[in-house]
Amino acid sequence: MATLHFYFDFISPFGYFASLRVQDIARRHGRTVEWHAMLLGVSVLKVMGLKPLLDTPLKGDYIRRDAQRYIRRHGLVLKRGLDDPVMDPRAAGRAFHYVKHHHPALAAPLAQALYDAYWAEGQDLSTADAIAAVPLPAGLDAGWLRAGIASDEAGALLRSAVDASLKAGIFGSPTVVVDGEPFWGVDKLGLLEEWLDCGGW
Amino acid sequence: MATLHFYFDFISPFGYFASLRVQDIARRHGRTVEWHAMLLGVSVLKVMGLKPLLDTPLKGDYIRRDAQRYIRRHGLVLKRGLDDPVMDPRAAGRAFHYVKHHHPALAAPLAQALYDAYWAEGQDLSTADAIAAVPLPAGLDAGWLRAGIASDEAGALLRSAVDASLKAGIFGSPTVVVDGEPFWGVDKLGLLEEWLDCGGW
Repeated sequence: MATLHFYFDFISPFGYFASLRVQDIARRHGRTVEWHAMLLGVSVLKVMGLKPLLDTPLKGDYIRRDAQRYIRRHGLVLKRGLDDPVMDPRAAGRAFHYVKHHHPALAAPLAQALYDAYWAEGQDLSTADAIAAVPLPAGLDAGWLRAGIASDEAGALLRSAVDASLKAGIFGSPTVVVDGEPFWGVDKLGLLEEWLDCGGW
Repeated sequence: MATLHFYFDFISPFGYFASLRVQDIARRHGRTVEWHAMLLGVSVLKVMGLKPLLDTPLKGDYIRRDAQRYIRRHGLVLKRGLDDPVMDPRAAGRAFHYVKHHHPALAAPLAQALYDAYWAEGQDLSTADAIAAVPLPAGLDAGWLRAGIASDEAGALLRSAVDASLKAGIFGSPTVVVDGEPFWGVDKLGLLEEWLDCGGW
């Protein structure tokens, strides 16, 4: 059975919402998930010629409201507000891809830990020190990770992953790709499940 | 029970998809629907500073694919392609608001007839003559409608409706507003039904 490819940006609240559900969805359908951190603001919006979602007139207000409605409906508690200053996500992206390259099995647990730290706990993750201070998955050494984030290798791994996600046509967080079929937005997780149930239309 | 306010643009395929479901959704929950034709391309995109959806890099390809997937899943047959030349929707908007003003009960049936003619039958609706040639709801006189579309009154009614939809924060087709709560996109019809079931979160 093909893997679910889960693309997300750490600064995306809807990506965070999806991160809390995607593993369960995969498990229910006998699938596994490969996590892919990407950089929406830094790379994709430039290609698309768009401004950030929350800064788009009319739509920004709706998106804010939709996120708050989702938070209430799913009983989430977030210490970070949607309009709080947005961190530079590159250190978190470097950390993720460095770990994914060297310890693939720890990539998803690390991403979830970083996502929880950022959105549920409201912590800053814009520096290697801040990331190393997050409760890390067992087996990940904080010192090794801090050095890795600063390495040229991590920078190259992140750039290469961002290029690959653009080449794959990914433009929004979250996007789940399964059997070559893309599902963009947390709103599409229901349709994704239907696809997994019936094999597509 | 409060009315569902259904905002749509005749040139929006997703608005068409929603038009085929919104009356049933309202009926199941003991609600009525007020239909609101608006002009997405002509007015809203300017305010938002966006280009048309299908012309947006990356996203355009996804939206095309998503619409085709919806069409297959729901067994729809459309004679108009998503990339066929887009008509000027102002004549259809004038027709709709002229009828809504003078014969409110015929507005929704007219909108559905025009939507079917445009998307399912692939007909052009950019002129008063083309609109008068559509099979109209019983009680609507084609000659009266043709003259109405050309009237200053119809122009003023359309402008006023478009202004009101912008003031209401509507930026996409379809949008359904119920109890002051907006649901944007055909993907949100499921969430809308949940809201109607439980009274909101």
